[in-house]
Amino acid sequence: MTSAAFDVLGIGNAIVDVISRADDAFLDQHALTKGSMMLIDEARAEKLYAAMGSAVEVSGGSCGNTMAGVASFGGKGAYIGKVRNDQLGAVFGHDLKAIGVSFETAPATSGPSTARCLISVTPDAQRTMSTYLGACTGLGPDDIDPKLVAAAQVTYVEGYLWDAPEAKKAVLKAFDAAHAAGRLVSITLSDSFCVGRYREEFRALIRDKVDILFGNEAEITSLYEVDSFEKALEAARAEAKIAALTRSEKGSVVIKGSETHAVPAAPVAKVVDTTGAGDLYAAGFLYGFTHGKPLAECARLGGIAAAEIISHVGARPETPLERLV
Amino acid sequence: MTSAAFDVLGIGNAIVDVISRADDAFLDQHALTKGSMMLIDEARAEKLYAAMGSAVEVSGGSCGNTMAGVASFGGKGAYIGKVRNDQLGAVFGHDLKAIGVSFETAPATSGPSTARCLISVTPDAQRTMSTYLGACTGLGPDDIDPKLVAAAQVTYVEGYLWDAPEAKKAVLKAFDAAHAAGRLVSITLSDSFCVGRYREEFRALIRDKVDILFGNEAEITSLYEVDSFEKALEAARAEAKIAALTRSEKGSVVIKGSETHAVPAAPVAKVVDTTGAGDLYAAGFLYGFTHGKPLAECARLGGIAAAEIISHVGARPETPLERLV
Repeated sequence: MTSAAFDVLGIGNAIVDVISRADDAFLDQHALTKGSMMLIDEARAEKLYAAMGSAVEVSGGSCGNTMAGVASFGGKGAYIGKVRNDQLGAVFGHDLKAIGVSFETAPATSGPSTARCLISVTPDAQRTMSTYLGACTGLGPDDIDPKLVAAAQVTYVEGYLWDAPEAKKAVLKAFDAAHAAGRLVSITLSDSFCVGRYREEFRALIRDKVDILFGNEAEITSLYEVDSFEKALEAARAEAKIAALTRSEKGSVVIKGSETHAVPAAPVAKVVDTTGAGDLYAAGFLYGFTHGKPLAECARLGGIAAAEIISHVGARPETPLERLV
Repeated sequence: MTSAAFDVLGIGNAIVDVISRADDAFLDQHALTKGSMMLIDEARAEKLYAAMGSAVEVSGGSCGNTMAGVASFGGKGAYIGKVRNDQLGAVFGHDLKAIGVSFETAPATSGPSTARCLISVTPDAQRTMSTYLGACTGLGPDDIDPKLVAAAQVTYVEGYLWDAPEAKKAVLKAFDAAHAAGRLVSITLSDSFCVGRYREEFRALIRDKVDILFGNEAEITSLYEVDSFEKALEAARAEAKIAALTRSEKGSVVIKGSETHAVPAAPVAKVVDTTGAGDLYAAGFLYGFTHGKPLAECARLGGIAAAEIISHVGARPETPLERLV
């Protein structure tokens, strides 16, 4: 690749996480499906928040977490996402810029407030997410600067963006700009329910445009509607250029044509909160990839980042990741 | 005491903490005195925040932390404090109510935003605080409902309130209402610099009105302008009805007339962040006191609560305190 100002440009839903501990009864009572992400409207967000216990607010958003991870490894990152010009929007912007990620997307000056993801962490360390997209729905093609896209080795987006129709158009514009500049594009499937909503579009996109695909076992089996990881792996091999597929404590498998690299998970003393595991795996992988590492090493870096994030509450690194490698 | 709807009514500066890790060089660079609380204006708050690393937002305020602690022990608490009707104000209110503390103070609908305390936690677990008081300066006597004061066994306030002139008037109104109803009043000295600002007023208040005084070693030696804890202890004995004086890892000493109860600190595996240690000591003590426990047992409960809070980042309990006793 020609030299690039940025290693990774991320495009995502700009969200502040509101993290609270809860028990299984709370999930039942509010009809929440453990481990999944559900979209909610503002009224439901208010109601659910009122029912939640005391919380911690921390910048989140799947792709935002990934970019924080890339920066924590010492990588050069930029981010495109839409907040409102409110207090939580300021928090989101501060936290990305504080870790060295370039973030210049103009905040909305009217309309819905900055997005919140209400996260219930159960004693089994699983996180259950209810997202009010708010200002994220205002992200559109005008927020994509082709020069910025061209300045990044890889443009990485989250499947969750498909939940906002204008954001999807923004992604497609960015993908075209990246390829026009000889750059690569990457996507995470985000969530098995998200895959269920956009299966055919995702499959077509993976066949036609995506250079690096990220997904976990539930997502990839849902994508190809198969009943085993092995079948999904072969389906992905047939359709994706590079796929990095995660399997929680079983580690990850990276495939590229006939190549297969199975890499064990990094050890974790105690799993506290799995929020962000996939996001940080992508961070480590993309940091390695944009620094010329072989695929197995990319997967190992992904595993190290995921292990750090699940050892504490919250989906942004507490320990600089560059110290862990 | 006659039966009361609330064990403790707290009056304090309603503040959201913005907690970030920092090194000593950061403190030097921004002229911050380690371990202390400094008041800053909005412009300085913006500048300091921009320089800080990525942060976590969590409801705080010294007295707010204490009330969360009282509730976490299973006590009945109410709180009076002023936020603005903005996002961080909503966070503050949610977090108190979520743990069961009654909080009905009307938020300001104009004027400065909800108060923030920018906290830098250094690797030695010390916290250094820069507080923008914002909406707190709007707390005044009109926010004190004498019926609410009369409904609480103890009205507990923070010395920090003296930094807002109208808030001081609110405290004096509350103290008079409490005594008129046959209730007790309590104050924490808050911070040695705060003591330096209001030494004579605090001493007069302790002699004339306060029933239970809280302070740490630095605060009590500053209050009486003496060079040893022992001298401060005897000075407090002469002027305070009950004084609960904390000494970090040396535990605490409670005095009441000729009685002296020295209680060792509760064990802590690893001190992570000392933010809130004094606040939670007061919570445990007041919970015990309002449940008829002897003074030494009150001090022991204070130590247990302090030990929980310093074992993690943030000044609100992560483990229900009633489980620890």
